[in-house]
Amino acid sequence: MIENRRSIRKYKDAVVDDALLNRLLTEAERTQTMGNLQLYSVVVTRDKDMKARLAPLHFNQPMVTQAPVVLTFCADFNRTAEWCRNRKAMPGYDNFLSFFNAASDALLYCQNFCTLAEAEGLGLCYLGTTIYMPQQIIDVLKLPKLVFPVATITLGWPDETPPQTDRLPLSAIRHNETYQPVTSESIDRDYTAKENLPENQEFLRINDKETLAQIFTDIRYTKKDNEAMSEGLFAALRHQGFIE
Amino acid sequence: MIENRRSIRKYKDAVVDDALLNRLLTEAERTQTMGNLQLYSVVVTRDKDMKARLAPLHFNQPMVTQAPVVLTFCADFNRTAEWCRNRKAMPGYDNFLSFFNAASDALLYCQNFCTLAEAEGLGLCYLGTTIYMPQQIIDVLKLPKLVFPVATITLGWPDETPPQTDRLPLSAIRHNETYQPVTSESIDRDYTAKENLPENQEFLRINDKETLAQIFTDIRYTKKDNEAMSEGLFAALRHQGFIE
Repeated sequence: MIENRRSIRKYKDAVVDDALLNRLLTEAERTQTMGNLQLYSVVVTRDKDMKARLAPLHFNQPMVTQAPVVLTFCADFNRTAEWCRNRKAMPGYDNFLSFFNAASDALLYCQNFCTLAEAEGLGLCYLGTTIYMPQQIIDVLKLPKLVFPVATITLGWPDETPPQTDRLPLSAIRHNETYQPVTSESIDRDYTAKENLPENQEFLRINDKETLAQIFTDIRYTKKDNEAMSEGLFAALRHQGFIE
Repeated sequence: MIENRRSIRKYKDAVVDDALLNRLLTEAERTQTMGNLQLYSVVVTRDKDMKARLAPLHFNQPMVTQAPVVLTFCADFNRTAEWCRNRKAMPGYDNFLSFFNAASDALLYCQNFCTLAEAEGLGLCYLGTTIYMPQQIIDVLKLPKLVFPVATITLGWPDETPPQTDRLPLSAIRHNETYQPVTSESIDRDYTAKENLPENQEFLRINDKETLAQIFTDIRYTKKDNEAMSEGLFAALRHQGFIE
């Protein structure tokens, strides 16, 4: 099932039942979690105005307003810290390690939710844009300190069956015992098939670039953007109390 | 299937076939990934001496030496950056945003690998300790710059069927439209059942604590440890080139 998956960006005009959503969110709670603390929460967006406010924070990808449901998965130490304070315990989770522990919990939970939703026939698209303008998402969703958005999913009943995209051979991913150096030979071995795909060749032509890699470095994920957004990410982590 | 999962810490003395491992690692590559860049790699540890070197870096949890296979999932921008450099493109991924993008990719991939492995009947335990002493793991596994370990799995054929652990009710996790404040009422509603479990009551007695929360704040995840390990995590991120 995971091996048949594809991201779905077009959804039928059909309701995602709230009881179904609750069942899937509950089943996903079986995911392993640090100390069984479940350091995550999920904000469910169904309201049209709320989707309109979130859309620009995800570069106006049309799925945000078109999907019946948008889910924002958050690293959450707030609930646990409040639990501690209500139980004569002094929480010490306003630090970066705790952020990363909670982010891991939230991402693993999110992935299992996705798998369960897809098994149910739902379609979804994972928005990596969540950490690009996190402070604005924090403001719209009214996330308190020690809560941080790490993943967004648009969810609905599929209205398309796109082809699966390519993947690298496992030789690019797997290392035995120690990390094996990446060489020009291993790059050629692992990337040539991808580079020669007709859709990627077309991509070069449209963008007037010489290599596929240049599309990533010069257009899609530039150093300048990455550095600016790193600053924003740090600032939001500071604002949410996870770093000093 | 996800709803029946439990962590497995005892494994049969039986081989995990390498062809099976390759199939599962390959199937997991279907996981959504940023720009289809697959910003992850996995180091497979089968060697006894390597397991012995990793064990103390995971607080000597016995699974590390007893499991037939240990998998370290890494955020990896090294391979992509090398691809760029080999293709007349200038990578700009030595920053924190890129680290978090790669860490997300690695964690989602890891979770789907876990789901696929469990569907095959394998058992596994997720070690959250991976980010506690990351520099030492980096050294043992010879991870180059822009590669960072984010999750470790011990894997084998199950030799136990532990009971499932408790989970919070969905009311603790789900928020509608905006984050609803956590209150002493919501804490009581969501945590009392957990606190009253016989195993958690026993936990209090053994540790001579008044509340379950104190076991987390005073013993398992203390402010002092979290702050020290946050420093180590930042230092390792700096060493690997993800922050300045």
